[in-house]
Order: sequence, then C-alpha cells, then structure tokens
Amino acid sequence: MASFREFSRTESWGSEAWKALCKVRETTPLVQCITNFVSMDIMANSLLAAGASPAMVHAIEEILEFTSLSSALCINIGTLSPDWIFSMKAAAIRANECQKPWVLDPVGVGATRFRTEKCIELINLKPCVIRGNASEIMAVVGASIAPTKGVDSSRSSTDALEAAKDLARVAQTVVAVSGAVDLVTDGKRVLGVSNGVALMQRITATGCAVTALIAAFVSVNPNRVLESTAIALALFGLAGELGAEKANGPASLRMHLIDALHMLDEQSVMNRVRIAQL
Amino acid sequence: MASFREFSRTESWGSEAWKALCKVRETTPLVQCITNFVSMDIMANSLLAAGASPAMVHAIEEILEFTSLSSALCINIGTLSPDWIFSMKAAAIRANECQKPWVLDPVGVGATRFRTEKCIELINLKPCVIRGNASEIMAVVGASIAPTKGVDSSRSSTDALEAAKDLARVAQTVVAVSGAVDLVTDGKRVLGVSNGVALMQRITATGCAVTALIAAFVSVNPNRVLESTAIALALFGLAGELGAEKANGPASLRMHLIDALHMLDEQSVMNRVRIAQL
Amino acid sequence: MASFREFSRTESWGSEAWKALCKVRETTPLVQCITNFVSMDIMANSLLAAGASPAMVHAIEEILEFTSLSSALCINIGTLSPDWIFSMKAAAIRANECQKPWVLDPVGVGATRFRTEKCIELINLKPCVIRGNASEIMAVVGASIAPTKGVDSSRSSTDALEAAKDLARVAQTVVAVSGAVDLVTDGKRVLGVSNGVALMQRITATGCAVTALIAAFVSVNPNRVLESTAIALALFGLAGELGAEKANGPASLRMHLIDALHMLDEQSVMNRVRIAQL
Repeated sequence: MASFREFSRTESWGSEAWKALCKVRETTPLVQCITNFVSMDIMANSLLAAGASPAMVHAIEEILEFTSLSSALCINIGTLSPDWIFSMKAAAIRANECQKPWVLDPVGVGATRFRTEKCIELINLKPCVIRGNASEIMAVVGASIAPTKGVDSSRSSTDALEAAKDLARVAQTVVAVSGAVDLVTDGKRVLGVSNGVALMQRITATGCAVTALIAAFVSVNPNRVLESTAIALALFGLAGELGAEKANGPASLRMHLIDALHMLDEQSVMNRVRIAQL
Repeated sequence: MASFREFSRTESWGSEAWKALCKVRETTPLVQCITNFVSMDIMANSLLAAGASPAMVHAIEEILEFTSLSSALCINIGTLSPDWIFSMKAAAIRANECQKPWVLDPVGVGATRFRTEKCIELINLKPCVIRGNASEIMAVVGASIAPTKGVDSSRSSTDALEAAKDLARVAQTVVAVSGAVDLVTDGKRVLGVSNGVALMQRITATGCAVTALIAAFVSVNPNRVLESTAIALALFGLAGELGAEKANGPASLRMHLIDALHMLDEQSVMNRVRIAQL
Repeated sequence: MASFREFSRTESWGSEAWKALCKVRETTPLVQCITNFVSMDIMANSLLAAGASPAMVHAIEEILEFTSLSSALCINIGTLSPDWIFSMKAAAIRANECQKPWVLDPVGVGATRFRTEKCIELINLKPCVIRGNASEIMAVVGASIAPTKGVDSSRSSTDALEAAKDLARVAQTVVAVSGAVDLVTDGKRVLGVSNGVALMQRITATGCAVTALIAAFVSVNPNRVLESTAIALALFGLAGELGAEKANGPASLRMHLIDALHMLDEQSVMNRVRIAQL
C-alpha cells in the first residue's frame, strides 16, 4: 500500500477539500437518510456538524415527494427489514429519476443470504458510491461478480482493492473501502486517504456517518464523485485526528470528533488532508 | 420583536419557573413519548435530567393501558409511518379521555402531503400544545386555516406570530414557535422566551427534546399551559446557555446542556430565566 | 442488605473479573441485540468499549442464520411491538438450538398486560439470565409464579431477593436484580455487587447496556453464568465509579463511563471490583 510519504501535504487536495467544505456549509444540502436505528443520532449530528441538513424519512408514502426535495440520499442496510427495503428501493429509483446522487452503505453484507440478496438488488439500482469495509466490499463481489472466490478468502488490502475495482467497473460506480488507508476507486483511478485514527472503530456507526457525509459532498460537486468521496473520508478522518488530541476513550472521541468537524478551519484542512493518487 | 431589555430578570417568572422545576423533580411525571427514532436518546436523557421519567411506548396493544398510566404524552411525527400514526391517534384519544395533557411536535410538516395530512388529523385530536419552528407552524396554518397563503410565503417572525395566533385560536391550543426568541401564544396572550444559544440548532433533536419537556411541565401545572410551555422552553434554553459556557462545539454543548439541566439551581433559574409578556 | 465491609476487595473476584475482561477483549464475542430503539446507541458503544462486537439484527428473515453466527443474544422488550416479538422468539429458539446463551431484559414488565404476557412467553423460552430492577423482577414473579402477591406489594430488597430466587428456581435461570446493591442468584447461591453510582440511573438505558454486557461475559465463560453476570455488573458499575470522578452530571457521566470501560486496567479491576457471596 501507499507509503506514508505519498500522503504528504498536497496543496491541490487541501484546497479542493476546503472549497468543498465551504460549499456544503453555504448550501446546506438536505441529505435524506434511510438508515439503521443505531446510526441515526451520530449520522444526523455529523451531517449537522459538517454544515449539511439531515432528514430521516423512510415511509413509502413520503418517498416520491421527499426524495425529490432532497439534495442526496443515503441508504444503509444495517437494521434492514422488508418494509424498509421497499422504501429504500423506491427512494433509490426516485433519486435516479431526479438525478440526485445516492450512496449505499452495505452494512454486514455477507452475514445472511437475505442481507446479501437485498444488497445486490440495491446495487442494481445504481448507487453513485458504495462505501464499506474490506470484508463487506469483498462479500458484495463474492456474491455478485465472483461467487467462487468466497467471502472468507484472505482479506488483505490488495485483495480488497482488486475487489473494489471489479465492483466499481461492473456496477459503474465509485467504491470506497474503509481501513487504515481508505481506498476510493472508480475502477480505473484509485485514491488513498490516510486521515483518521484507529479508535474511531470503537465508536458505533462512524462508518455509517461518513457514508452520509459522502452523500452531502457528492451532492455539491456531482461531477467529481471520486474526489468528493475521498474528501468526505479525509475530512471526517481529520476531525477524528483533531478529536483524538483531546479524547480519553471512544465516547470522548465521538464528542470531540463532532466538535472538530463543526470547527474545521482552512488551515487544518489545507495542511492535514491526506489524499493521494495511488 | 421584543428588545433585549424587555427580558430583564423578572422575579415572578424566575420564581414560577423554579417552583415548576421543583415540582417536576419531586413528582417525576411519567412522559409517554411516541417519537422519531433520531430523537429518542436525547429526549429520554433530557427528561431524566429535568427530573421526569421517560417511556417510549408505541405498540397499539399497549396504548389503552399505558397512556392511562402516564402523566403526559408527547407525539412527534419526525420518522412517521402509517402504523405509528395509528398508535399516535389512539394515544391522543386515550390521553384526552383520561384528561392527561398531550403535546404535538409537527416535525417537517409541509414537506410531503402525507405528513401534512397526518399532522392535521392529529391536531384535530386536540393537543394542548403544538411546538414547531416558524416554517412548520406556518405550514400547518397554510394547510388547514389559510391554504391560499401557501407555505413558502415570507417566514418573518411577525408572520409566524400571526400564524401561531390563528392556529391557537382555531385549534384551541397553545402554540409555541421556536426561534431566536421563542413565541408562545394561546391566541390572545403572547409570551416571548429569549433563553438559548444558536448552536443548539446544530444538535439534532433539541427541538424534539424540549417538546417532551413541555409535556412534563404542563403535566405538573395543567391549569397553566401557556406559562408551563414558556417555562420549559426557558429552562431548556438556560441549560443551553450554561452548557455553552463550557462547550467547544455542538457535541460538547449537547453534553454540557444535559448536565446543566440536571444541575439547574435556584439562583440560575431565578436570575436567568428570560420570559416576557409581549 | 450486605454491609459495606463484606464487599472489601477479594483477590479471587478481582482476578476472575480481570481474566473475563481479557477474554472478551481477545475473543470479541459477537452479541446480537434485539433491543429497544432508545438503548441502541449506548448498548452498541458499551459493547464496543468492553471489547465485544455488537450487531443489531431483528428481521425475521435473518434470524436463523444470524443467531447461529452470534456468540450470544440479548433480548430487550423496551419498545416492543408484535413483529419484533416474533423475531425475539425465533432468535431465542435458535440460540437454544445452537447452545448460544441468551439473556432477557424485561423492561417495564407489569406496565401493560401485553408486555407482561409477552415477557412470560419469552421466559418460557429459557433465557440463561434475566436482569431487571426490583419492580420488574417482582412483576414477573407476580404474573407467573405468585399472581396473588400482586405487583404493588412492598418492593423491599428482601422481597425482591425472595422473588428473584423463586423466579430463578422456577425458570431455571440466573436472575439479576439491579439496585444500590445488585443481587444475582441462581435460586440457591446469591451474589451481591456493590459497584456503581446512583447517578447512572439518570442516564437512559444503562440497565439495557449492562444486560448486553452480561450476554458478552456469559458467552466467554458459559459454565459460569452466575459469576459472569456478577462480573459484568461489577465492571460496568466500576466504569461508572471511575467515570463519576470526572463527571458533572448524567451526560458527562455517560461519556466518561464508556471511556472508563474501554480503559479498564488490571489494577482498577483487581482492587475495585466489589462482589460478595451473600
């Protein structure tokens, strides 16, 4: 994987990230979230801290109108059930009709046949970004593109990257694989993001929250999906780094992370965003 | 709107607020909440911090018995779906039968026809308080009383106040409009509350939480609905002011606000509650 | 109840608790939680802080497969509804088939007939631990074993202990009664746990969270259900004590408690776990 030096400060990435953050803060994109129950609090608060406007709306009776109003849609299958899946699909279809970006977080895919099946059905509705951890992305690929590989094959970063590229090409989407270094690919180009601290994994739903941020950032720069995805990951990770300077454990990290996201300033973003083309 | 001086310390309001808080702490009213998923954590913790006892109970099978046991009912349509609406209506009807106060938070009303329709149906079940922001209150009025005005007319405070008065008169209820200065009216009298800090808007579900506090405060002084509503808004806002003295962002404000609500003492309440008859 | 001196440091309990915590941290047991909406955030974060891995999965379509994958199951009836009860039962049955421990938190049992009935039905599916407060445990006993006693009989600790022993014997389970001193019994032996601080009761869902921890701790020592239950209660209570040293109210206590749970070290556990055979 990329060496540490490759992520040294790049003025252009810092500058693009700062501009994107300012755009989110100025335009407060409305992000409709159909997401798992565990993630709702941290997702809504993370969106607010970044300057966006969250709306958790899942009733099928509201989808046609509400998804049209929204700037972006975030779908997360963490606590899925059949009725919610129905709304997720309706919202995804509506988002496509209205040319609003929608992103998918395939939480726990691979754990059960039902979850895997529904996840594949959602991917067929063409999300513009899919973000998961290495085993989730590999489970999607194992279930759809290369079932013979199996989910439990070695989950090295290299394997995950190849799986992500395959998925991105076949599904014509951007795929983000969270990890020590986040990988973002459209099937051809690959960006690496090295912001963040390991303790963030001990806070529930940080992955879910950053997927919602990706939706917000893509919505303000819809022609730069790959870059916007990397920027959202980098800024959330940077907020985690800044928060970690004050934290004594996962709960205080959660608090300081959200405070830091709200307070992100030009200097921190310009100097500390760590994105590199791999 | 009211000038700052009008809100200077008034012994009678501080004293009434302090007595009300003591009564909540002594009697720990049981507040049944049928509320959106995003708000449940902060709502339950805010009620506990104020001295009340929260209970999130929504199954239709429990409504008849549970609403009878409760001291007050808080209904919030944030993440509504048809089955929950059914329980909300049953609970509202039961609360009226048992002469328990119930309050309505019309989150996002106006965004979709379904939401607006269900909100109007709930208002027809006679909540004793409706609390929303200016655009929500104006959306309710636009949909029920004066449809020709439309939702998207100018949302100045003056417009919102007139809408709130209309709604209060027609629905025979108290209406609270949250804003830089909260307005509370029964259609005739108008109280203004100027406690609170702007950053509270960047914490998800603070509005939802204060609506639940209103339910608690009205339940201990059922003959003073207008005043109890203003007091709940003032005390929550005051907790936000005290919390803001220690906060570095929205997440730490949330924590310090709830701590401050729990720790509110006579001196702070007497000196810093800012309610005025407008 | 037990005098304070009885709980003075016992090397064997401290040592067993520390070994159990290390085992949770090393093996990261997967705890499936079918729990109320209010508790999900703090439950997931408490499990993560203790070293376990939470999964909130409730869809009936996933139960057969997912419960088989899990190390333990935590069922909590706080915000129950008929469809969730259906999944709870299926999961409990599946856990028994797979010899995975499952624990029950009978939140609010006694408040409505529906809740009491469903709770009894769940107890008939043989949880290995039931944890509630004194009135919940007495409500279960009143409804199942000794209906003539009634729920509203005096709820002294002695009464609760006798009720807990009766329930443990009849249901062939371990029963934990939370209180100033937690009592844990298998119907014959009784352990008392005196860790914790009173302010924890002003944080929503701390009881729910500790029930999930019990599931995690029982899963790593399935032959010591009684002891593992006491240890989970003691460690969560100890985290509360350590958190209280830094807290200024219930919200900061919640944060510091979870941080402390994550940071628990051998010295604190060895010196401060307070469990005694009564």
